[in-house]
Amino acid sequence: MRAIVPFDARDPKTRLSVLFDADERRAFADVMLDHVVEALHAAGFEPTVLATAPVDRSDATVRVDDRSLSAAVNSVLDDWERPCAIVMADLGILTPNALDRFRATSGDVVVAPGRGGGTNALLVREPDVRVDYHGVSCRDHRAAARAVGASTTTVDSMRLATDIDEPSDLVEVLLHGSGRVHEWLRTHGVTLRADGGRVTVERS
Amino acid sequence: MRAIVPFDARDPKTRLSVLFDADERRAFADVMLDHVVEALHAAGFEPTVLATAPVDRSDATVRVDDRSLSAAVNSVLDDWERPCAIVMADLGILTPNALDRFRATSGDVVVAPGRGGGTNALLVREPDVRVDYHGVSCRDHRAAARAVGASTTTVDSMRLATDIDEPSDLVEVLLHGSGRVHEWLRTHGVTLRADGGRVTVERS
Repeated sequence: MRAIVPFDARDPKTRLSVLFDADERRAFADVMLDHVVEALHAAGFEPTVLATAPVDRSDATVRVDDRSLSAAVNSVLDDWERPCAIVMADLGILTPNALDRFRATSGDVVVAPGRGGGTNALLVREPDVRVDYHGVSCRDHRAAARAVGASTTTVDSMRLATDIDEPSDLVEVLLHGSGRVHEWLRTHGVTLRADGGRVTVERS
Repeated sequence: MRAIVPFDARDPKTRLSVLFDADERRAFADVMLDHVVEALHAAGFEPTVLATAPVDRSDATVRVDDRSLSAAVNSVLDDWERPCAIVMADLGILTPNALDRFRATSGDVVVAPGRGGGTNALLVREPDVRVDYHGVSCRDHRAAARAVGASTTTVDSMRLATDIDEPSDLVEVLLHGSGRVHEWLRTHGVTLRADGGRVTVERS
């Protein structure tokens, strides 16, 4: 199955600015994209990176579109056969197993919600469904599917639900991640900090 | 399988004080406990509420122990046969399906991590394992299991990973919850607020 992986190639992960400068944020975004593309291949998907600016990749097709996220994804949906998937590029603890469960979930539209109302992955088996990532997108995608008579299901996965936007999200990578994303954080001095309440991270 | 459900019967959910007064927080904690006990019954578990003070429940055995969480749970583990489970009382979007997957996961110790390093549910098939909820407990529980030669596995569930501590956690209940916890929030005027970035809640 083909999968769109939207990627901000210009100024990614701005909410991590408290920990990383612009070059580091771009490097970290690249490492997460590597990880997501690798997991997609391992789970039998054919990824296309949908980037806001040209990127050089040997492991995936690249399509450049500098419009808004929703417009760019919908343009791909206009061109592609169903079923296909849209998977965010910042799923730092994604595994092939989680993607296997995602693909095995029945329904015309399968939503993998992100924490806080986002849509971290969407599997579209219905031709008429389009995306809108603005606002409470997991709710809006369910409503959009219903509006064209499509059934929706939700996949229950912490790994799919964890997109890496804020410093607190890095806790999940340090605890549940492996491979290159985890290694990148370690190399850049990011460690867990536990002093009561929820665990946070700090950089040395 | 028997399941321990630890419950703070005195001053629960203090991090929700910005939204709810003490009586409301106690009522909301009760509603979440109702929900968790109901889901456990539906999934074939036999719940025992392990409360810090006497509580009146017709749907579960009650055991009162006002010691620390870890000491109280370990005292039950001293008394009970294996396998048994420990499931937190504030899993506001828990479903019987998520519990079914939890129980079906192999391993001497099955960890359902909470967001931010906690342990939201633990399935213990090994007699020598004890709990310690202080600090980064999901990591510590894996290490404790390894220390006694027990295998550990992790269950990948957003529903098990979502404990309700902070206002932002209520977003998940409003989006993915159903039944009485969702209804309680609606009745008390809690709604989603989306104005860019992650979605939050507000109370009217």
